[in-house]
Amino acid sequence: MGRWVPDARGRLERAALELYAERGFERTTVAEIAARAGLTERTFFRHFADKREVLFGGTEPLKDLLVRTAAETPASAAPITATSAAVEAVGRLLEERRAAARQRQAVIDAHPELRERELIKLAALGDALAGALRDRGVPGLAAALAAEAGLAAFRVAYDRWIHGPDEEPLAAGIREAFAELRTITAG
Amino acid sequence: MGRWVPDARGRLERAALELYAERGFERTTVAEIAARAGLTERTFFRHFADKREVLFGGTEPLKDLLVRTAAETPASAAPITATSAAVEAVGRLLEERRAAARQRQAVIDAHPELRERELIKLAALGDALAGALRDRGVPGLAAALAAEAGLAAFRVAYDRWIHGPDEEPLAAGIREAFAELRTITAG
Repeated sequence: MGRWVPDARGRLERAALELYAERGFERTTVAEIAARAGLTERTFFRHFADKREVLFGGTEPLKDLLVRTAAETPASAAPITATSAAVEAVGRLLEERRAAARQRQAVIDAHPELRERELIKLAALGDALAGALRDRGVPGLAAALAAEAGLAAFRVAYDRWIHGPDEEPLAAGIREAFAELRTITAG
Repeated sequence: MGRWVPDARGRLERAALELYAERGFERTTVAEIAARAGLTERTFFRHFADKREVLFGGTEPLKDLLVRTAAETPASAAPITATSAAVEAVGRLLEERRAAARQRQAVIDAHPELRERELIKLAALGDALAGALRDRGVPGLAAALAAEAGLAAFRVAYDRWIHGPDEEPLAAGIREAFAELRTITAG
């Protein structure tokens, strides 16, 4: 049923972000998003549970990338090396979508309930990363702290990448944040 | 109007935590909390906006303690030293309330919407700590990362303190987490 539409998901995402920016998140309906994308509401609901999930639907692929990259780092690598490799891989993926990321963040920043949702999603990424580190044989305390440190570096670098004026790639900002974290914790 | 009742706030908190544990957060009413504490609903609402805020009303004093301790650390101390002093001060304060903290956390863990609320409150503590570090002259990136690292050490130590069987004081767990974080980030 329904013919296959190339990149329906991407078109819905772009249409939604445009509309959220133009008229606000609350005042945008699923019908409008579908119309802007030239698709049906039915197609929308094949891809997203609701208009909020358009903003968070990208989290699962990020989690998979994070876990896979940590798992694929050579077994001899230190926990922080596996962590930074995983977080930088996420940074490189997001790099391709800077304009969309900025639009998305502006919507989230304006809505406390979306901000809460984002914090939950980030915490889930941290839990997944800690699990991947434990699967490498890293003890629980070290795995939890390495994952938290990785998320901290990510959050700080992401914030600068989203809000900053400069053109520094996100992965470079993440590397810088890890280096700074090492300097800071050394005291 | 209304006679002064010694420790009304503390009595309401203890009554609320008991009831949340006995019959669940949703099924507890403000009237029941007030009755259990031997107080009126009117008194309840002088202290808390709603039954959810009984769980989070303690955040502001923690934030004040965090900021004050960071500010009072000698100017010559490194950012991570001011951070760990501030986080340990919070740990010592919470130490006096371990039983209540466990009851509280059990309620929060059982309710995703309370968990989201807690993440927001923790993020606000991190922002306040970063601000206190910037006030000490720490540059923005270092302040953001030191605050994130401090919160990471706190979250991991707090989780072990709440859920762990051992009797290790929270402040000691926080020191251990900071030491482990240093070891980990050194690679």
